[in-house]
Amino acid sequence: MVNFSPKLDVSLDPPLPKTRNEGLVIRKYGGSSLATPEMVNEVADEVAAIAEAGDRVVLVVSAMGDSTDRLIDLAGKFAEPPAPRELDQLMATGEQVSAAVLAMALTERGIEAVSLSGDQAGIEVAGEPGAATIVRVDPGKIAARLRDARVVVVAGFQGRDADGELLTLGRGGSDTTAVALAAALGGSECEIRTDVHGVRTADPRIVRDTRVVRTISYDAMVELAGLGARVLHPRSVELARRHGVAVRVTHASDPGPSTVVTAGEASMEDVPRVIGIAHERDVRLVRVEVSASGPDHYARVLATLAACGVRPDNLSWPDPGELRFTVRGTEPLGLPIARLAMELDARSTVFEDLGSVSVVGTALLDPPGFLPGLLRVLADHRVTVPAMTTSPSRLTAVIPADAVDMTVRALHDSFGLAVDRP
Amino acid sequence: MVNFSPKLDVSLDPPLPKTRNEGLVIRKYGGSSLATPEMVNEVADEVAAIAEAGDRVVLVVSAMGDSTDRLIDLAGKFAEPPAPRELDQLMATGEQVSAAVLAMALTERGIEAVSLSGDQAGIEVAGEPGAATIVRVDPGKIAARLRDARVVVVAGFQGRDADGELLTLGRGGSDTTAVALAAALGGSECEIRTDVHGVRTADPRIVRDTRVVRTISYDAMVELAGLGARVLHPRSVELARRHGVAVRVTHASDPGPSTVVTAGEASMEDVPRVIGIAHERDVRLVRVEVSASGPDHYARVLATLAACGVRPDNLSWPDPGELRFTVRGTEPLGLPIARLAMELDARSTVFEDLGSVSVVGTALLDPPGFLPGLLRVLADHRVTVPAMTTSPSRLTAVIPADAVDMTVRALHDSFGLAVDRP
Repeated sequence: MVNFSPKLDVSLDPPLPKTRNEGLVIRKYGGSSLATPEMVNEVADEVAAIAEAGDRVVLVVSAMGDSTDRLIDLAGKFAEPPAPRELDQLMATGEQVSAAVLAMALTERGIEAVSLSGDQAGIEVAGEPGAATIVRVDPGKIAARLRDARVVVVAGFQGRDADGELLTLGRGGSDTTAVALAAALGGSECEIRTDVHGVRTADPRIVRDTRVVRTISYDAMVELAGLGARVLHPRSVELARRHGVAVRVTHASDPGPSTVVTAGEASMEDVPRVIGIAHERDVRLVRVEVSASGPDHYARVLATLAACGVRPDNLSWPDPGELRFTVRGTEPLGLPIARLAMELDARSTVFEDLGSVSVVGTALLDPPGFLPGLLRVLADHRVTVPAMTTSPSRLTAVIPADAVDMTVRALHDSFGLAVDRP
Repeated sequence: MVNFSPKLDVSLDPPLPKTRNEGLVIRKYGGSSLATPEMVNEVADEVAAIAEAGDRVVLVVSAMGDSTDRLIDLAGKFAEPPAPRELDQLMATGEQVSAAVLAMALTERGIEAVSLSGDQAGIEVAGEPGAATIVRVDPGKIAARLRDARVVVVAGFQGRDADGELLTLGRGGSDTTAVALAAALGGSECEIRTDVHGVRTADPRIVRDTRVVRTISYDAMVELAGLGARVLHPRSVELARRHGVAVRVTHASDPGPSTVVTAGEASMEDVPRVIGIAHERDVRLVRVEVSASGPDHYARVLATLAACGVRPDNLSWPDPGELRFTVRGTEPLGLPIARLAMELDARSTVFEDLGSVSVVGTALLDPPGFLPGLLRVLADHRVTVPAMTTSPSRLTAVIPADAVDMTVRALHDSFGLAVDRP
């Protein structure tokens, strides 16, 4: 299996504090929680209460509601597509506006608050416009502000590179900013306020009686997020794992259960268990037959695919000379297949109209394991399975797209996920 | 006469180039020239033509049309008044958006262009939020960009202070940014594209047949700007004077005559001439009688006025123990007058419903001078004149507010300003 492996790092300078910084709340609010001035004022009320209770607060904010879309629309009036560097310069203002108005709202409530752009917050990034990664956070910048202000509001999704260029982080960028700040400042936990209660045992649009997962390991979260739960972007989870930051996902306005993503509670660490059922639609299965087998040939196939922007998933080589993988989405595959034929004399076959279901959990393959249970459900429901891959934390079956909903429900039921456990 | 003396400086590091930078166009577009996406695209067409002809271009832009008002409205939804620092963080995004979209539009036309915030452009400022002044421009930042890009678009009205704080420059800030960049980069001229054709010989709302002044000295421009022409803010003119930058004011969309503000052409330098007629409404005349005369007492009066935020204009002391000055605007004067009475035992009288007319020009008092002509017009029209002040570049008469329009017309006609001269 090819895991999504985000290239992220936080080089801490000075190094990570030895003791966790208690009394410091690090919290991110997504754009859906800041969609209107009224919602911003509600967030300000909530944060003011924390600050008044004595904690210092570092907030990371996304752009307000649809302002990102409005900025993209504006850009479209001048260029199609806009120059990536300039799109970044433009987009970064969305988060800066959110940060400034939230700091205003807090100041209005008598709370000393300052807003900072990613640059002002000491977030150093590298990479290309729209897809930068955080390479370093200077914790001194925010720490200095926290000596005077009770709340520091940081514009998420952005930073400054070594040449002074402003760059945005791309998808999941604000979550990643929050986790990076928690790591750099030694916060014990990073809270993500969003529009869901946390991670569920399956997609509630498919399964009626889903449950919020109370704790989940970083690894299992990456599997879930990459497959469909989309509560946290895998890159932010990966960063949290590296720096041991616990991430709590909570609904912004509706109190209730929440999910903590962490290294795992000691007592549960080795207990095999199913956490949830993930799924994917718009999956295609590609079979590539090369004239000569061997790792070298496979590597050349993968290089050609990467050059065409194709990201293979669920990779396997069932027979010598054959590579099999899935591709998500609906992007045409004509060009990569033509290049594979021309450059490597490879014949490719694409199977369309597929989806996938995945059982995600811990130690799934430890005996007796959960694979027999998965196979039994598939067989009982006469689901054809053109491909399957397994790992200790994920068992994935590629199935017809029109069987996805039914299979997710059957698996959720079969593994008893709706019942709360102690 | 008390001149408006803006505290502005550009410390150049490295120092001002010895030779002017030919082939470098430095131009500012005001918000009214960037009010709609269509207007931004028109500006992009115009600038692309210059860049294609071979020149490098540094643009300074204001926020698009009403976006500044919209940001102020947004701020009003969170705080009244908003924290000044946060208002600056918010307002600065307006110019950053303009700069980014204009750079996009240029890139779309095949012109290499980059946008820069004031900070990225190396503009160092000092002072308070909303009222910062430029203390230094690092020309290396823009010069480095001009090696790759034909056009650099700089967000006006902003900079970064020594502590890394983002600050805006307040009124006239974008004009001042443009002049500061011209000084720092050694541009031979700074062009201001705005919604007027330049400086006129009088207010066209009062006088029908005004003429655009082709050249005007820095000093005369300050007199005009401070009095009512309001084409360029005095602070930008003062900065241009200090660094010998010629400023050309041109209508952004309607070609035609323009005004160049400069040290003066050699051949005209010593020729006495009237440039235009300025005027002011909402003027009050204040007469302060102090118990003891002398510079020390006058100084105490002025200190008390300054402490109350009163800026005296057209100051004179006609008799021992009496100080006379005008105050613009409609702010109540009760507090300063009460303090003058309490602290200095001074009796004050305020004359309301006044205005002023000023003959602005060069060497106005050289014999035979223009004062007789001014006095004749006032006498012919039976205008009462409660106060008058003169300087070589300005002759000002305080007159009843309801006589302002008629007197401006009479003076414009009497000094032959409507006729174009060679």
